[in-house]
Amino acid sequence: MGNTFGQIFRVTTFGESHGGGIGVVIDGCPPKIDVSEAEIQRELDRRRPGQSKIATQRKEEDRCEILSGVFDGKTLGTSISILVRNKDTRPQDYAEIATKFRPSHADFTYEAKYGIRNWQGGGRASARETIGRVAAGAIARKVLQHFCPKIDIVAYVAQVYDLVAKIDNSKVQRADVEANIVRCPDAAAAKKMISLIEKTRAAGDSLGGVVECVVCNPPAGLGEPVFDKLEADLAKAMLSLPATKAFEIGSGVAATRMRGSEHNDPFEMRGGRIRTSTNYSGGIQGGISNGEDIYFRVAFKPPATIAREQQTVTASGGRAKLAALGRHDPCVLPRAVPMVEAMAALVLCDHTLRQRAISFHK
Amino acid sequence: MGNTFGQIFRVTTFGESHGGGIGVVIDGCPPKIDVSEAEIQRELDRRRPGQSKIATQRKEEDRCEILSGVFDGKTLGTSISILVRNKDTRPQDYAEIATKFRPSHADFTYEAKYGIRNWQGGGRASARETIGRVAAGAIARKVLQHFCPKIDIVAYVAQVYDLVAKIDNSKVQRADVEANIVRCPDAAAAKKMISLIEKTRAAGDSLGGVVECVVCNPPAGLGEPVFDKLEADLAKAMLSLPATKAFEIGSGVAATRMRGSEHNDPFEMRGGRIRTSTNYSGGIQGGISNGEDIYFRVAFKPPATIAREQQTVTASGGRAKLAALGRHDPCVLPRAVPMVEAMAALVLCDHTLRQRAISFHK
Amino acid sequence: MGNTFGQIFRVTTFGESHGGGIGVVIDGCPPKIDVSEAEIQRELDRRRPGQSKIATQRKEEDRCEILSGVFDGKTLGTSISILVRNKDTRPQDYAEIATKFRPSHADFTYEAKYGIRNWQGGGRASARETIGRVAAGAIARKVLQHFCPKIDIVAYVAQVYDLVAKIDNSKVQRADVEANIVRCPDAAAAKKMISLIEKTRAAGDSLGGVVECVVCNPPAGLGEPVFDKLEADLAKAMLSLPATKAFEIGSGVAATRMRGSEHNDPFEMRGGRIRTSTNYSGGIQGGISNGEDIYFRVAFKPPATIAREQQTVTASGGRAKLAALGRHDPCVLPRAVPMVEAMAALVLCDHTLRQRAISFHK
Amino acid sequence: MGNTFGQIFRVTTFGESHGGGIGVVIDGCPPKIDVSEAEIQRELDRRRPGQSKIATQRKEEDRCEILSGVFDGKTLGTSISILVRNKDTRPQDYAEIATKFRPSHADFTYEAKYGIRNWQGGGRASARETIGRVAAGAIARKVLQHFCPKIDIVAYVAQVYDLVAKIDNSKVQRADVEANIVRCPDAAAAKKMISLIEKTRAAGDSLGGVVECVVCNPPAGLGEPVFDKLEADLAKAMLSLPATKAFEIGSGVAATRMRGSEHNDPFEMRGGRIRTSTNYSGGIQGGISNGEDIYFRVAFKPPATIAREQQTVTASGGRAKLAALGRHDPCVLPRAVPMVEAMAALVLCDHTLRQRAISFHK
Repeated sequence: MGNTFGQIFRVTTFGESHGGGIGVVIDGCPPKIDVSEAEIQRELDRRRPGQSKIATQRKEEDRCEILSGVFDGKTLGTSISILVRNKDTRPQDYAEIATKFRPSHADFTYEAKYGIRNWQGGGRASARETIGRVAAGAIARKVLQHFCPKIDIVAYVAQVYDLVAKIDNSKVQRADVEANIVRCPDAAAAKKMISLIEKTRAAGDSLGGVVECVVCNPPAGLGEPVFDKLEADLAKAMLSLPATKAFEIGSGVAATRMRGSEHNDPFEMRGGRIRTSTNYSGGIQGGISNGEDIYFRVAFKPPATIAREQQTVTASGGRAKLAALGRHDPCVLPRAVPMVEAMAALVLCDHTLRQRAISFHK
Repeated sequence: MGNTFGQIFRVTTFGESHGGGIGVVIDGCPPKIDVSEAEIQRELDRRRPGQSKIATQRKEEDRCEILSGVFDGKTLGTSISILVRNKDTRPQDYAEIATKFRPSHADFTYEAKYGIRNWQGGGRASARETIGRVAAGAIARKVLQHFCPKIDIVAYVAQVYDLVAKIDNSKVQRADVEANIVRCPDAAAAKKMISLIEKTRAAGDSLGGVVECVVCNPPAGLGEPVFDKLEADLAKAMLSLPATKAFEIGSGVAATRMRGSEHNDPFEMRGGRIRTSTNYSGGIQGGISNGEDIYFRVAFKPPATIAREQQTVTASGGRAKLAALGRHDPCVLPRAVPMVEAMAALVLCDHTLRQRAISFHK
Repeated sequence: MGNTFGQIFRVTTFGESHGGGIGVVIDGCPPKIDVSEAEIQRELDRRRPGQSKIATQRKEEDRCEILSGVFDGKTLGTSISILVRNKDTRPQDYAEIATKFRPSHADFTYEAKYGIRNWQGGGRASARETIGRVAAGAIARKVLQHFCPKIDIVAYVAQVYDLVAKIDNSKVQRADVEANIVRCPDAAAAKKMISLIEKTRAAGDSLGGVVECVVCNPPAGLGEPVFDKLEADLAKAMLSLPATKAFEIGSGVAATRMRGSEHNDPFEMRGGRIRTSTNYSGGIQGGISNGEDIYFRVAFKPPATIAREQQTVTASGGRAKLAALGRHDPCVLPRAVPMVEAMAALVLCDHTLRQRAISFHK
Repeated sequence: MGNTFGQIFRVTTFGESHGGGIGVVIDGCPPKIDVSEAEIQRELDRRRPGQSKIATQRKEEDRCEILSGVFDGKTLGTSISILVRNKDTRPQDYAEIATKFRPSHADFTYEAKYGIRNWQGGGRASARETIGRVAAGAIARKVLQHFCPKIDIVAYVAQVYDLVAKIDNSKVQRADVEANIVRCPDAAAAKKMISLIEKTRAAGDSLGGVVECVVCNPPAGLGEPVFDKLEADLAKAMLSLPATKAFEIGSGVAATRMRGSEHNDPFEMRGGRIRTSTNYSGGIQGGISNGEDIYFRVAFKPPATIAREQQTVTASGGRAKLAALGRHDPCVLPRAVPMVEAMAALVLCDHTLRQRAISFHK
C-alpha cells in the first residue's frame, strides 16, 4: 500500500534495481497537457547513474517509454504509464549480501517485514526506485505550468559534509545549479565539494549533506488545513526519499531560537497585493501557501553502502565482516536534486488540482 | 479532504475554536479493545488550556463524550466518535482580526484559499483542533498496547529558545516529564524554561523550542517501502501540528556532517536477537522499523499571536497595527508534548494494522 | 474503514441505534455554499421514523445540530459535522436478541466479524445509520445546485411487492411523490400499496419493492473510466443502503434480452446539442454521463425484523424461536426514497468536484 | 483517479487498445505467495480475443511479463507490475470513428469529459483494459487460497438473449463451464447459445445476457458495515466492467416480490456450526459474509459496436451513418466470465486483508 502518492494527481511506482524494469503509473492527470518522452528523459538524465565522475558508475541510459495515456503528444486524461528497462545489472556483485545485512541499509528491515527480499542491488530499496518519481515529476511540472504559468521549482546542493555554500535562495538560477556536476550554484564551494567527494570515494567512505529547494511564484491558497498542510505533505514527500534524515520549512530549526516578535512576517501591500516583508514562514502559513516563495531544506545522511569493511551479522545470526562490492554513490546529493524537485512538483501539482476541485468559482 | 489521517486506523477531525464543539471520528479500530472516557480525558487534560501558569488562560475543561463505537467499555469495531463542547468562548476578543490579518497566523491564507473564514479564535486553524487528535491518540495507544504490549511512547520538551535540556533519550521516564509544568525531564533546565516563558509572556512576546519523542520497544517491520516510509508518515504527522517548522529522525540534521563509516549502525547479536550497536538511524532503516527505539525531534516556532503591537494590513489592503487580544500560549511546547505523542501513536497504530493485513502468517 | 464514502466530497458517518447519537463529518465541501439546519432537517424529516402510519412507530424527532464547518449560514470549506441525538431508545425491547440471532439481520455476521456487538436496536446495522447519509446528502445537493443549477434528483417508490406503479420516469414531479405517504407518484397504485403495507404489518410480516431514481439535467462528463464509472459508484452507493438486493442502470436487466441494434441509443442534434433519441443507456456511456437524464432502479428486500415467530439459534448454538419486539418498518420503501436521493447526490457531487479538479480549463 | 481499485490489495491499471501495451500494478500483496507467469497466462487466455469462433477475431496472444515484485517465484510484498504488449493493432479500421461517435459507446462521453480521445480501437474504453484486471485477479486468487484454502470462485454464462440455462448454482463445476466455448455449464443451452451468437454476428448485430458467479466456502466476517458492505463492493466491481447494466446479490430483483417470512433465512446448527437453511441472502447479511456461498448475477447489454449501419452524428454535429469496421464480439458473455471472476477475487482478497488488519486476535 505504500507505493502510491497523491490524492488526485496520483502516482504509483514499481520496479526493483534488478529485474524487468522500473516505472510509474500516473492517474488523475488533466487531459490535453503537452508531454513528450524527451522532456521526461531530460529529467531522468539528471538523475541517472554514471552521469559524472562523482556518481555511481553503473551504466544505465534509463531510456523511458510512454506506454499509455499520451496520444499525439498530449495527455488523454486517462492513466499514463512509463517504463524504464534495467540494462546494466550485476547480480553477482550482491551475492554476499544475500546472506549478510549491510549496516544501515534496508536489507535487515525488509527481511524482518516480509520474510523475503530481492537482494540483487537492493531490490525495491534501491535508489533506482526514484526513476518513477522523477518521470512523474516531469509531467507534474507540465501540469503545474499549465495552471500556474509563473511557477518554478529549483533545488540545489547547499551543503556537503562540512562545506556550506553561500547562496541567496531568492536569486538562485537553474543554469548556475546545472553549471557543475555537484549541482551547487556557489561555484567556489562546488569545486571543494567535488574534490571532497572524490577523496572520500577513494577512501571507501561516503558523505551526507543538504539539498535546498525554492518554489518561486506559487499561487496563494495551496494546502489543506489540519493533516494535509502543504508543509506536511512536502515533509512526507521528502522523507520518503532514500537517505533523508530531516526536513525544514522556512526558518526550520532556527525558528526554535527566535521570539514571535522576530519570527512573525509582517504583512504589507507591495505591487498591488498583500505580501510579507520577511519570509521566515517559508511561504506557508496555517498549512496553506501565502503566495511568497516556498523554501525548504532536506538533510541527507551519508550512503550506507561503502567499500570500507564493516561489522555486521548474517541472516543466521553469525558475526561477519562486509566490504561492499557493487557500484555506489559516495554522496547522493547531486543526484538527489532532481528527486527533490520531482517530489515538490508532485505535491504542488496535487494540491493545485485539489484546490481547483473545491474552489467556489464555477 | 485534509481532515482525515491514516490508511486503516483512520481519524477524521472536525470543529473550530468557537462553535458547537470539537471532535473526532475513528474508523478502522479493532474490536474488543478496552476504552474509557477517563483514559481519553487523562490525555486531554495534558493538552487543555489553563492547566498551568505558563499556558493560555482560556478556561476549558474539555470534557469528552464518547458518542458511539464503544459498548460496555469495549470498542465495537465500528466507527468511534468523540465530542468535546466549546465552553469558554469570547468572540468579542477577536472582533479586530475579522478585518486585520495576524502576521504569520492562518488568517490571510484561509481567506486566500476559501474566500471566507471563521475569525472567532482562529476557527479551524486554532490549536483546539488538536483535541480530536489527542482523543484519537489515546485510543491508538490502547490498540498499540494490545498488539505490542511492551511499546511505549514518551515525548518531552528538549529545548525552549536557547535553553537546551540535558537528557539521555534512552532513559527518559514519563514521571520525570510530568514532574514539572514545562514537561522537561531535566529539572534544572525546566526551572529556567518556566522562568523564561513567564518573562516572555509579560513582555507580550512568545518563544519556540524543540519536542523530542522516543518510541521504546517497537516491533521490527513497521513502515512501508517507498512513499509510506515510517519516518515519512511521522514527518507528515508532526508537520501537520500547528507551529511546527522541522522534523528530524534519528541523527537528523547532524547526519549531514557525518561519514558513512561513522553513521552506519553496525549489526550485532544481543539478547538473542539482531540489534544495532549504535542508533543513528533512529530505529528506522529503508523506511521500516528495525526494532531499536525510534526517536525523533520536532521544531516549533514561537506562537504567532502576541500581545505586542505588530505591523499588518486589513482585508481591504490598508496599513494597520495589531496588538492581539484573546488568551494565548507564550510557548506551545508544554502542551505540544501530548500532541506529539498522539500523532506518533496514530502513525504507529496505523502501521501496526497495515503490517497485520499483509503478513504472510495465517 | 468502511464508514467513509467519496473521494473529494467525503462523508464519514458514525453512531448506533442506541447510544449518544448519530452523525456525519463532511470533508471536501467547497466554501461559501449556503447551508442551514432547516434544509437538512427537511430531508431528515422525510427519513425519520414515526412520520406516517406505515412507518416504524419509534418516536424520534431527529433534530440535527451543525457542530462545525458552517459560519453565518455559509460553508467554511473546512470539515462540517452534524449531530442527531438518539432520544426514544428502548434497549429492553432488544434483550432477547442479545443472545438470539435474528434471521437475515446483521446480528450473526457482526458477531462473526467482531466477536462483539451492540445488540440494542441493531447497533451500527440499524437503519438509523442512514441519518448521517441523508444529512450529508442535503448538503451535497446544495453544492450540486451551485455548480449545476438545472440538476434535480427525484426518487420514488415504483413497486411494492407485486404492485407495480405506472410512471413515466421522464415526467415525475417531486410534488406527486410527496403527495402520499408511500411516496409513489401513481396515486392509484399508492393507495393499494398503503393498504397492502398495513395489512402486512398487521400480519406480523414485511414487504420488499423497488425505488426508482431520476437525475434530471446532469452535465455530460461526470464519471471516470475503468473502476470509478458513474454507474459503478452509484451501484456501490445503493447497495450500501440497508436491505438492498439489486441495482439496475438504464435498461438494466431488460438489456439482457435486447439486440445491439435495438439497445443502442442513436445520436442526433436536438436543441443545438448532441442528444440521443432513446435512452436505454440511462444517461451513462463508458462510465461517463452523456448529458441525458440518468435513471436507475434499486431493489429492496422485505425487512428482516418481523413480529411473526421464526426459527433461529442462540449465540451458544441452541435451537430457538424468535418473535421480534421493538418497533420496525413493515416496508422500508417510503423511507428509502430520501436515502436513495441522498446517496445519488453524494455520488454526483463527488464526481462533479472530481471533474472540476482535472478539467483542462484554467 | 478512477484507475485504482481496492483499499489494501490495490490494483492500478493502465493502457489502451492501441499503443505500447496494457498492464497493472498491484500494491499491498502479501509476501511469499507463489506466483508464476503461467498461472496469470492461464486466466488471460480465457479472456483473450480470438479464442473461439464466437469471439472477436483480433489476433492477440496477450503474453504477460511480470516486470517486478516477484522473485524466485514468490511475491516480495512490494509492488507487482505486469505488462502485456499490444500486437495486432489496426488503427486504420477506426479512422471513421475519429470523427463519428459510435452510438452507445464511449466515444462521445470521453470527448465530452476530456476534450480529447484516443479513437484507435476505443482507447482506454476498450475491453482490452480488462487485461490488467484479469492478471491481478489471478494473483488475488492465489492470495485468497493462501488464507482461505477452501474458497473457490466460479462464474458462468446463465443467459444469452432469451436463452436461459438450467443450472443449480450450488453444484456448478468449473470443468462444465470450460467444456464449451460459451462457458455455460448447461450443455444443451450452450449449444443453442453458440448457434444464436453465430447467427447474430452474421446479421451484423449483437446480444446481451447474464453471468452468474458463486463464491464457494467463503469465511464468515468479510465486508464492512455501512459503505463498504461486501455486496456494495461487489456491485461496484461488476458495474465497473464494460457493458454491464445490473447487479443482483442473492435473491436480487426477485426479493422485491417476497414477504419477510419467506425471504428470511432461518438459522440452524449444521455440521457443528451455525448455518442458514435457505440462502436468499446470497451469503451476505448486513454487508458481511455469513459463511454461506456468495452468489450474484451480472447483466450485460449487447455490445455497442455492430456492423449494421446506425444513425449518429459527427464531432461537428453533422448527421451521419456508421457501420463499424474493426473486429468485435457479437456477445461479450463468454469472455466476461473470467473478468467477473477476477473482479470477485479482487474484492474478496481485499476484504480478507482488511479483516486481518482489524482482527482482535494477536
